[in-house]
Formats: sequence, C-alpha cells, structure tokens
Amino acid sequence: MSETDPLVVFTPSGKRGRFPVGTPILTAARQLGVDLDSVCGGRGICSKCQITPSYGEFPKHGVTVADSALSEWNSVEARYDEKRGLISGRRLGCQAQVMGDVVIDVPPESQVHKQVVRKRAEARDIVMNPSVRMYYVEVEQPDMHEPSGDLERLAKALEEQWDIAGATADLGVLHGLQPILRKGEWKVTVAVQQHSEGQTPKVIQVWPGFYEGKIFGLAVDLGSTTIAAHLCDLTDGEVVASSGIMNPQIRFGEDLMSRVSYSMMNSGGAAEMTAAVREGMNALFDQISQEAEIDKTLIMDAVFVCNPVMHHLFLGIDPFELGQAPFALGTSSSLNLRARDLDLDIHPNADIYILPCIAGHVGADAAAVALSEAPDKSKDLVLVVDVGTNAEILLGNAEKVLACSSPTGPAFEGAQISSGQRAAPGAIERVEIDPTTKDVRFKVIGCDLWSDEDGFAEATEATGITGICGSGIIEMVAEMRLTGILDGPGLIGSPEQTGTSRCFLDGRTYSYMVWDGSAEGGPVITVTNRDIREIQMAKAALYSGARLLMDKFGVDEVDRVVLAGAFGAHISPKHAMVLGMIPDAPLDKVTSAGNAAGTGARIALLNTSARREIEQTVHQIHKIETAIEPRFQEHFVNASNIPNAVEPFPILKSIVDLPDVNFNTGGDTGGEGGRRRRRRG
Amino acid sequence: MSETDPLVVFTPSGKRGRFPVGTPILTAARQLGVDLDSVCGGRGICSKCQITPSYGEFPKHGVTVADSALSEWNSVEARYDEKRGLISGRRLGCQAQVMGDVVIDVPPESQVHKQVVRKRAEARDIVMNPSVRMYYVEVEQPDMHEPSGDLERLAKALEEQWDIAGATADLGVLHGLQPILRKGEWKVTVAVQQHSEGQTPKVIQVWPGFYEGKIFGLAVDLGSTTIAAHLCDLTDGEVVASSGIMNPQIRFGEDLMSRVSYSMMNSGGAAEMTAAVREGMNALFDQISQEAEIDKTLIMDAVFVCNPVMHHLFLGIDPFELGQAPFALGTSSSLNLRARDLDLDIHPNADIYILPCIAGHVGADAAAVALSEAPDKSKDLVLVVDVGTNAEILLGNAEKVLACSSPTGPAFEGAQISSGQRAAPGAIERVEIDPTTKDVRFKVIGCDLWSDEDGFAEATEATGITGICGSGIIEMVAEMRLTGILDGPGLIGSPEQTGTSRCFLDGRTYSYMVWDGSAEGGPVITVTNRDIREIQMAKAALYSGARLLMDKFGVDEVDRVVLAGAFGAHISPKHAMVLGMIPDAPLDKVTSAGNAAGTGARIALLNTSARREIEQTVHQIHKIETAIEPRFQEHFVNASNIPNAVEPFPILKSIVDLPDVNFNTGGDTGGEGGRRRRRRG
Repeated sequence: MSETDPLVVFTPSGKRGRFPVGTPILTAARQLGVDLDSVCGGRGICSKCQITPSYGEFPKHGVTVADSALSEWNSVEARYDEKRGLISGRRLGCQAQVMGDVVIDVPPESQVHKQVVRKRAEARDIVMNPSVRMYYVEVEQPDMHEPSGDLERLAKALEEQWDIAGATADLGVLHGLQPILRKGEWKVTVAVQQHSEGQTPKVIQVWPGFYEGKIFGLAVDLGSTTIAAHLCDLTDGEVVASSGIMNPQIRFGEDLMSRVSYSMMNSGGAAEMTAAVREGMNALFDQISQEAEIDKTLIMDAVFVCNPVMHHLFLGIDPFELGQAPFALGTSSSLNLRARDLDLDIHPNADIYILPCIAGHVGADAAAVALSEAPDKSKDLVLVVDVGTNAEILLGNAEKVLACSSPTGPAFEGAQISSGQRAAPGAIERVEIDPTTKDVRFKVIGCDLWSDEDGFAEATEATGITGICGSGIIEMVAEMRLTGILDGPGLIGSPEQTGTSRCFLDGRTYSYMVWDGSAEGGPVITVTNRDIREIQMAKAALYSGARLLMDKFGVDEVDRVVLAGAFGAHISPKHAMVLGMIPDAPLDKVTSAGNAAGTGARIALLNTSARREIEQTVHQIHKIETAIEPRFQEHFVNASNIPNAVEPFPILKSIVDLPDVNFNTGGDTGGEGGRRRRRRG
Repeated sequence: MSETDPLVVFTPSGKRGRFPVGTPILTAARQLGVDLDSVCGGRGICSKCQITPSYGEFPKHGVTVADSALSEWNSVEARYDEKRGLISGRRLGCQAQVMGDVVIDVPPESQVHKQVVRKRAEARDIVMNPSVRMYYVEVEQPDMHEPSGDLERLAKALEEQWDIAGATADLGVLHGLQPILRKGEWKVTVAVQQHSEGQTPKVIQVWPGFYEGKIFGLAVDLGSTTIAAHLCDLTDGEVVASSGIMNPQIRFGEDLMSRVSYSMMNSGGAAEMTAAVREGMNALFDQISQEAEIDKTLIMDAVFVCNPVMHHLFLGIDPFELGQAPFALGTSSSLNLRARDLDLDIHPNADIYILPCIAGHVGADAAAVALSEAPDKSKDLVLVVDVGTNAEILLGNAEKVLACSSPTGPAFEGAQISSGQRAAPGAIERVEIDPTTKDVRFKVIGCDLWSDEDGFAEATEATGITGICGSGIIEMVAEMRLTGILDGPGLIGSPEQTGTSRCFLDGRTYSYMVWDGSAEGGPVITVTNRDIREIQMAKAALYSGARLLMDKFGVDEVDRVVLAGAFGAHISPKHAMVLGMIPDAPLDKVTSAGNAAGTGARIALLNTSARREIEQTVHQIHKIETAIEPRFQEHFVNASNIPNAVEPFPILKSIVDLPDVNFNTGGDTGGEGGRRRRRRG
C-alpha cells in the first residue's frame, strides 16, 4: 500500500489503513486485524461479513467519502439480496472493493467476537469466543503423484484458508469424510473444536458444500433438586431454548447428604445415582432440542456447573469422601471430557467442560456464580448469595474473595413446608398482612391481581390456589413478623396474643390460616410453627455463612448484596432482610441476579477465555469451611432469631417497625431454632 | 560441591562431578543427568537403581577408589538382599552414599533408556522410551484449610517428586482414585502416559503402595492373511509372548481387492469386516495374555502396523476409495486413538498408535519396515522387500528413499498353489533336485532330516508330509529351473524332454511329482504348471516393483537386498535369485530381516521418539504408484520369465548354470505369464 492508495477507516474499532484500489473490504479488515466475521472465507456465500459504508464528510477521521468509494453492487450481492434480503445500506465485505477513501462500519452481528448483551444493567456482556466454530473450505483433490490422505488435504486447506494449523479429526469424522468431500465436490463446511489456544484443533463435523444451518451448545446447571439448561446458538450466543427437569436423583434423597448416605449404605448406590442423573440429563436434552426443533447432534459443546456432590455423582465418582471431614474432592480442577464418556447423547464428538470446584463444599456452581457476578472485579465489597438447597456464598472485592457454602436445605424451594410447593401457577408468591386487622392478601403465580381484588376468583379458577412457593414463604414469614403475629424467637402467637382468629391452636403450637379452599375442594393453606422452624434454620444457615465470611474479611457490613439462585429474581429484598437472611444493607443495594450459576455456565460456553479466567480466579478465592469454624455455630444460634438475636440491623430498623413481642409462656416449644442440623443439598 | 568434595565418576557415560560426603549415588546421578532408573524415587523399594562400584586404581579416570569410598551396606539393602537377592558387588544407588572418590558403573538393566538388543548383527538396538511409565509417589493428605482435590495433590506429588508437570487423569482413574489413595496410605504407584514431549501427561492407572508387577504393550502387525502380535514388557522391552491368528476377514475375500469389492457390493459390508477384524484382534489379545499368564488390563499401550486397506477397515473407514485411482486414503498421518474407541479390550485407558501410511498402496506396514530397516540411514543402496500377500518395496540410501507396493498375491504364502499350505509341521520347506537323476529330496518343517536320509519316515510319522509352504515352493520352482525340468518361459517339460518319469501329463500340461503319499493315506504332492504360473506372476509383480524403483533411482543394480516378511527369515537367497524375484546381487548381500513390519511396530512401541522419527521419514519417502507407471507392465512381462527375459543376472550366472531349455512345442500353453492381473492382498 502506498500513500496515494485510498484510506479505509473501520468503525467502531477506529483501525485504518491504505489499500490499493480493488481490495475487498474483507481483505482490508483482515490485514488490519479488524474483527469482521466470515464463514465462507470471502466467497460470497455466508453473508457473515456484512458491513455498512458511510458517505460524506468525516472530519473526525479526516476523510471525505465519495459516492463512488466502493465498487458497484455486484451480481453476488444481488443474488444474495434476492434470495435472503440484505439490510438497506449494507454490502458484503468480501464483494465490495475499495475505490476511494471510505469509512466502514462493522455492525455488531458481523463481528466474530460479537457481544452477547445481558439484560441486567450491572452485568457485563459476553464476548463470543466459542470452542466450536464453522469454516468453509475448498480442499485439493487427491493426486496419485503426490499421495496424501483426504484428511491431510482438508487440514492443509484449513491452514491455508483459515490459518488453523495442525488440525486433526475425530475418528467418527474419518468414517464419513471421504464420501462427504466427494459429495461436496471438494467444498465442505467443517466444525472445528478448540478449547484453548494451545490445544490441537479438531474437526468434529463435516458437511458437504456450504452448511447454512446453525450449531448449538448447552449451558447446564445441575442442581440437587433441578437440572436446568440453556440451549445457545454458538454463532451469536442467543439462547434459543431454556428448559429444566427435576433431578431424578431425588428418589435417592432430597438433600445431598442423604444421597451421600445412600451411596454409603447401598453397594452400587453411587453408580445407580450416576446412571439416574445421566438419564435425566439426556431426557432434558431431548426436551430442549424438541422445544427448539433442532437435531440433538447439532449440540456440539456443553458446559456443566454443579455442587461437589452432584459433580462427583455425575462423573461417576463415589461422593463418600464428601460426607466427612476433611471433605476431600476426587478432583477440583476444571475438566474437559468427552460427552460420550458421560453417556450424554448429543453430537458424538462433542466435548464437555465442567467448571472447577472451589472446595469440598464449594463447587463448580459457586465458581460459575463467581464468573457471572465477578466479585473479584468489584470495587465495592459485594456479598453474593446463591440460594438453593445448598447456598453458595461469596464475599469480596478486587482485593480478595472469600467463599463458603451453607446447608440451607430445601425450605427456600418450598420443600419441607406444610403448604409449600415449587414455583408454579397457583402458588402464592407475594404476601401482604394488614398490621391492624392481621388479615392476609396475596398474589399467585399466573395472576396479577391481589387476592382481595375484584376478579381474583375468576382469574385463578384455572390454576386454583395450591400452596406457597419459596419467595412466597419468605414474604409470608416476614409479614407475620412485621405484624406481630410471629415473635423474634419464632413462635406464632395465640389468637389472644395476636388479636386474630387466623391464629389457631394446631397441636402444641399455633398456626396461621392463609387460605381455606376446602369449600371449593381446594387445599387449606396454613403456616405452622414447624414451617417457621424450617425457615428459621434455612435462613440462619444462610446468614451465618455470610456473617462468617464478614468476620474473616474483618467487616461488619457490606456495600451491596446480590441474590442469585432459582428464586433470586423473585425475592423481595425488604422481606429477606426482615427475616435476617442477609446482612443489613440499603434496600437499593440488594439486587437479584437470577440464576447466576446458569449464567456463569453460559459465559463459559460462549467464551473459552472465560474458562481460563475462572480457572485462575478459583485459585485466588479463599475457601472457608463452615463445618470447622467455631463461630459458625454461634452465628447460627443468633441468626435463628428473626431477624437476629444480636445483630442490630440499623438500616432495616430505619424503614420498618419490628414489634417487640414474645409469645414464649415458659413452655417447651421455643428454642428449637438453636438446634444445629448439618444438611447439604 | 567444592573442590575438596569426593569425585564421582559414572561409567559407561563418563559423566563426573564432585559431591559432598553423604550424597546418595542416585542423587549424584540425577544431578549429572546420568541415566539411572528408579521407580520409587530413592525410597529403597524398587531396586531399579542398582549400581556397581569399582575399587582400586583408575588411571584413566585419575582416581583411586578406597574400600571406604561408599557408605556401609545398610539395613534397607540388607532387607532387599534377603528378600530378593542382590547380585554380588551391587549396591542400591539410593542407599549407597559417597564417602570418597569413587567409580560407579551403571549396568544396562539399571538404565531408564536401556537398550533392547536385537539379534541381527546389522540391526540397530532399540532404546527404551515407552509412552507409559510407572512412578511411585507419596501424596499429601487433604487439608480442609487448604482445600484441593486428591487428583491435584497426586499431580503435585508427580511434579515435586518426578518433575512431571501438569498431569491429568483419565475419567476411569478418577472413579477409583480416592479409595486407592487411602488404601495405600497416601503412597501409590501410578502409570503415566505421555506419547510425546508436548503432550499433557495422563495418569491411566493407580495402584496402592508400591506396585511390584509389570506393565505391557503390544506390537501388532495386522496383515491381510494373518494378525501377529508381540507382547512386550514396557520396562525392559523384553518380548514376553508372541502369537498370531488368521485374519477373520479372510471369509470376506482372500486378498485385499476382494475385500474392497465385498464392501462395494454389500451395504454394511465394510462395517461387518471392521467388526470381524476387531473381534479377531481381541481373540488374539486373549490368546497372547493367556500365554504370558497376565491380566489383559496390564496391556497399557499398543502399536499397529498394516497395509492401507486393513488400516481403513480396522478404523471403520470404508476402503472404497482405495479400490480405484487415485487411491485416496481417508487419512495418511499417524494416529493416536483410544483402545476403547476401536473396541479393543485391553487396559480401559490405553491409547493405541498407528504408524503413518506412505500412500494409497503403501501403508503403515511399509512405514514400519522403513523404521526397522532404516534405508534412509543406509550408506549403500539397499532394496528392502517385505514379502506378503502384498509386497512392500523400499529402495534407497541416506540421500533418497523410494517406495511402492506390488500385488504379489498369496502364492508366496502357499495359497493358490495346488499342494500349497501355510508354514506348519509337515510342510515341505527345503528342496533339492538332483541335476542328473532329476529326483527330488526335501525337508519338512519339524524334522531336520532330508527325505532320503535314514529315519526320515519315522521322524515325520507324526506330522505326515502334508504340502509345500511358501519358502518350499520357491526352492522347488528354482530347483526345477536349475535342473532343466522347467524352462525359462515357465513350462514343465515332458518325461521325454526332461528325462524323468516324475514329469507326467496332467490335463493339457505337465506336472512334476514330488511325493506320493497315497499308499500311506497321505496326499499326493505335485507341482502343476498352474502352480508355476502363480509363482511366476507373484515373483514378476515383486521384481517389476523393485525394478521400477531402480529405474526411478536411475540405477541398474543395488548394493544389497533385505528380504522381510513372514517367510523372510526362511527364504534361500540363491533360489529367490534363480526365480528372479529379486535383482541380481552377491548372495552374501542378500539377508533376511524376518518380520520387519512387526519389528518396526515393536520399535515404535518401546520408543516414542521413533514414532516422531518415522512420521518425519515418511514425508521424505518418494512414493511410486505402480498402477500408473507404463514401464511396470513391461517389467512385469519380462519378469514372468525365469529368471527374466531381458535382465542378464551376471552374478547369478557366475554361480549357477541355468539350462537353456525351451519346452514350447508351438502349442497354446505358454506365454500365460505375460497376462497382467491386478490383485492386491
């Protein structure tokens, strides 16, 4: 290029250079290292290299772009436009040639490392850098005088046309390679797998000619109770389907420790649970691919996050050691495994990636939360709480991150609650109790009306009012505490003590009547004092884990709180704080991150660099083992009180009045909250 | 170390250095880079580090070794000596400490890279450098305060104690790792797999404590007709068992082209043949491990060599393309695959290595012959002929190597010969015909007597005289030619023409009576003119391949000839030359290499560097495709004559008289040898 050649300026990168007249824009972009996508390598087939030229005066760039700055619209572009339609003003970068000074905008969707925008304002976007990518290549035909294998000529084409050196192929690809090359008349599209920079690139799929379809990846959050998966387009990162199923291991035990016990007490029990979870996984993959109407074999990558016990059971490692101190993991590193070695029925050559575990009780799910919420990049001190059957808790900032897990049990998911249920239409999810009348009104999932509003009965006729889900029970208990129906130690008052007949003697303690649907054949929904105990223990476990990390960090307050987990998006910060689930903090500093573990899995799926990043990060996270920390027990006892027996919660108390009631009449019903249970799951 | 420290001189390496008093010999060896083995890492368990100190004056090394040069025999050595016996004069290198100047001899068996001595004088030794090695390690116990996985602590121990960094483990190892570590009380022996320097080391087996057993590898020569395997000790390279079976694919076709046809004409035919050969392989592995009395799961590595069609059928690639020009291979590179992906029932984490193919008709077996016979390292011009159902031919020297294959057919293995049989007891393998009486005498396999010697009948009573094997038929035809029973164009003479009643009319041509066993209920063994035709075509194919390479090399003679292949060790150079199988050369320059392909497989098995070497070498071998060389046809026609219609064979003629007979009486029985058949297998 010489000084008299036309100047090409790319936006948004700002990269610029002079190129001889006739240079295709794609060529110019490649030479300058501008991120402009192409699957067909500039053959006018894939349309991935679309760009938008700008015309007129650009003082900022010091150029004036004439109407004739690019070559005329050509037949390839015309054919493409006719067939698929090209957005007005767009050109194909491989066809449009430089004729004069020009400013070229690369729209986001034409970038290889395009950004997947996350909806939450504070969340960082995901940069596309998947482990499997597609390339169109033209392969040399065999020559008897220069004998070489078809695969070797394919690898040569990848090197010459795509700069991908030393590609090998999976045995399965070799089985079909020869007929496919001939069917495509030596033009094929290949899917190349490369997990990391040093890894040998591997061809895992070959299609004859130019493959116009998509390829997919799975981000799987393997929880104790549910298995949830996002099916993502590996080209643009879009979530094309999300689905979940119950973990079939539930039949071996609701929480993790009961599954560990099952494996200890039943020879072959671990193997049985491994088979169950893998079968469940395949059922989920069937379901999600049917939902997205794709062939399962187009799923070419998968990332898994899970807690340590699920991790081991999924891999076929007996979780025995995780059931006892020192809680030694079989392996804590990230893993690249072949889908078929885990009996997973997706693309036969797909590999799967499992995020690293942080410690014996702090798993790959916590690592995924750390990847998604990035406490290690936070300027202020953030507490991230991933609420599930087991809670993963991270506390830190750019200087230091601490982590622990705490056995909350399944109460927050509506289990072990007398009227509890999973979040589904008909479940009570929002609650208000009138401080004067002590009457309750609520909303159920699937209906926007409050239960005392006109039309509620009609609107909920189809679903009925079936129970209370996790977020509903949190609001319910907090409202009971706020309205003096419940005292700090966790006793429901009598009708006399509370002034409402909704409180009634139910065995040796009192219960609170929420909804009597028996006249219509529906359930009677109450909150029993045993339900309160379950919630007390769950929230005490959660709080004391967080408090322990604060002790270790040497702080008494945190700057902000991120609630993650299955119901993280639905939780009411105020009610959570009234319960004393989380430390005292300004309400506007308590935000929800939704399923952060699943998001972390998705980030790792779409960006292999993020895998390297989290592998580094977990080494820097300091793990706290709650089981051996003497103060955990003390925190737990204090946190059994609602909100807390010793913590002052000044911010909370500045916005709500907590009635100073005590219903303990000297009987034996109180104090159970102080009993310590070790329960994981 | 200071100038006053004792001097330690190691032989045979000559490495020397000064070490403080008290330094163990093993430590000194490691610091100097002396090749001294150890599996237990100096803990006095494995006894691999045995050395022999020398005492007295060593002017050559400039040292005098006092009797007190090493520390006294200690309790570890005494215990070992009592338990297993230490050769007199030997010490354990990890126990004996430097006390004064000393000369230490490292015996061959104590070297890591010990030499496996090959019996043939001209063959180079094999240096041990296997892909799987054993290491004893002491692993840190888990610590809740510094959580890490058991595997990660094992990897750390490998790095700290053996300098093996970044080891991972196969999923199968993870399944059993935790109980094994605890059973071994955190002391384990691991088998680590590493094919090449850059590859991540992988733990494929863990034993509790110090594992005293051996581990094994297989070198497999997968031929069209037979599958042969050597089972080798991966520590010392010793062949502990050798075994072979018929290739079960024979039922789909005797030669390769008929198998290719079978796959073309039968849907699923290729898959059927793939299953058959893999089943056969597993049967062979059962057989060989039973013979060696070892558990199959101790076979942790395997190397395969085979021709291209077998290569593809073994891998599950349809050999369709190999049946037609341009004979494109699916892949020509070497392959590292997992045994289980090929349904091979050895150690579950074993990988297998397949040598690279040279071209569409010149396979991994030819590469193995090149590795074993190393024509690329030869100063003189060597012709290497690997005789099988398909002949692999290499011609070259340190400057250049050419290769081709030639479809000899199975005649040299005794097939398609009327009285032919495979080499087995009772088969005629040596032949002499009296030039005057035209009477024949012979030896059979299993008996050292000639058939006209006393006691022959008794000695062969058990086996009988059952047929003629490959080397026998070569000698037979050559002797018939030498004694004027057979003419140059390949016609057997009449009784009148030859002067012996052993020649008799047999249909339209004459046959030669070798042995009439019918009186004892045995077979009548004759050589028919059709048998002669088969041998003519086989040897013409062989010779014309060799001659074509000579043309391409621009030479009319070679310095030496190496005969390899199943019967390479048994062939008579003189008779082979009378037949005109090989070019004219001094008889003492014609040597036998035995099963060179199998040897090449063994070299690659025992030395991973040799794998890299042959991968490089095959790129430098120039391949000649006989099918498209016009001169091949011409050479073939000339070579149909015995020994040859045009080549002078001056050296041969200086040692034997070839009767100038011609039995063609103008009939139509001659000249068939000129008909060209394309036959591979």
